[in-house]
Amino acid sequence: MTAPTIPRSHPRYRSLMVRSDLAEKMAEGLVVPEGLMAHGRGEAFDYLLGEKTTPEAAKAERAAAAHLLLARHPVLSVNGNVAALAAAEVASLSKSLPRLTVEVNLFHRTPDRARRVADALRQAGVPTVLGEHPTARLRGLASDRAWVDAHGILRADVVVVPLEDGDRAEALVRAGKFVISVDLNPLSRTSQKAQLPIVDELTRALRHIDLGILRMRRWEPSRISTVAQSVEAPEVLSSALRRIRVRLDRLAAPEPRRGSPRRAG
Amino acid sequence: MTAPTIPRSHPRYRSLMVRSDLAEKMAEGLVVPEGLMAHGRGEAFDYLLGEKTTPEAAKAERAAAAHLLLARHPVLSVNGNVAALAAAEVASLSKSLPRLTVEVNLFHRTPDRARRVADALRQAGVPTVLGEHPTARLRGLASDRAWVDAHGILRADVVVVPLEDGDRAEALVRAGKFVISVDLNPLSRTSQKAQLPIVDELTRALRHIDLGILRMRRWEPSRISTVAQSVEAPEVLSSALRRIRVRLDRLAAPEPRRGSPRRAG
Repeated sequence: MTAPTIPRSHPRYRSLMVRSDLAEKMAEGLVVPEGLMAHGRGEAFDYLLGEKTTPEAAKAERAAAAHLLLARHPVLSVNGNVAALAAAEVASLSKSLPRLTVEVNLFHRTPDRARRVADALRQAGVPTVLGEHPTARLRGLASDRAWVDAHGILRADVVVVPLEDGDRAEALVRAGKFVISVDLNPLSRTSQKAQLPIVDELTRALRHIDLGILRMRRWEPSRISTVAQSVEAPEVLSSALRRIRVRLDRLAAPEPRRGSPRRAG
Repeated sequence: MTAPTIPRSHPRYRSLMVRSDLAEKMAEGLVVPEGLMAHGRGEAFDYLLGEKTTPEAAKAERAAAAHLLLARHPVLSVNGNVAALAAAEVASLSKSLPRLTVEVNLFHRTPDRARRVADALRQAGVPTVLGEHPTARLRGLASDRAWVDAHGILRADVVVVPLEDGDRAEALVRAGKFVISVDLNPLSRTSQKAQLPIVDELTRALRHIDLGILRMRRWEPSRISTVAQSVEAPEVLSSALRRIRVRLDRLAAPEPRRGSPRRAG
């Protein structure tokens, strides 16, 4: 398939370019077919949320930055879709917070895909990437899906899991990690299980977390801690659902007729 | 990628099997990567609609059956996803209504894909498939996307377009066709432009249309016509949005605590 030529003026230009890019990265072996379907589900929720960061998501992203700054062993888990969609944002984050460990963590793991994901991250500028040769296992997960790195996710206190599967998010919570999810579906098991769910599109979420880190990194821990504690998971999720309902109401309302004469009073 | 083993007891068994099947059919060249993402978007809306045919969708499907029975040249347009997801349902419908023309109609057209889609339909039992060597063009569409068959869509009075692109649905309406869409997103341009939008999952929609045809085919045309006229597009779409809002409210509500003692009055 040749990439379609999309005019920049197309109202869905960005979304069409991302789709075409993901399709290419599947052909290269970075993304799996399941990843394309998951992206479609995310797109539907992003559309319903208004395709921009909501004030509540921005607040959750600031809280996530605070948790990462306070963590002893913060880890960012990266799968094929994350590497395909946001390698540059991951690289920038790892520069803003050098303590942050970046670990390849694949649901559909093959040595070849793990290497491709790690290569994509290194090419984007991530200095060190764990997870190509995982050394430990998480409890309560089926064979291939349990692999983690003993120096990464296994010892992490705070883990960011963008676009993560529900079973694995749950296993991380059970293992005592503080889990920050990035998932556009506020009803997904991942969003429901995470201690701090971020309901936002991945690149927007990572950029906001990055900005939060740059803004707060010289703050007193107690002040950072106040920001970290400022967000409650149930409120994040219910506000996202509220946004969708309000937007559906607006989208469902009949368009006002243009140029219809006003009735004189 | 090997197909994951999914236990039948998994709460999302059907949806996971469909995903794995679509991924396989992409590897075979029947489905394009864009089709996988579109499927994901549909899944998200199906989830929000409750993953079953709503009473309003059932009514629209009955009206669609009536329109097909009354049509002089009814056509069912089939793309890669439709062939992958519902070849058996298309075959059954073409038996229930032998006048129905089945036409391969691809957004990402190559001669090879057109042949594969037609082959999948014939293997499923569709006796005649048009659209492998299209002979005419629809006005107002860019080159590859305009191709249709002079004996199929071009002369059709009623066209069913499942999972159709907005531009093409609009071109069909402009060409004077009565367009019946099947699309889980009530806000998509296709749903908004179709004279009769069906907001339901494809296989459920086709089965219900099929049943409607079998039930009504010996009726007087005037009685069938009453059923055809019984549905208004704006009401179909607003009721689907209403269903989503109600479901979001229910899903957002905190779960009732089990076994919590009732307060005595």
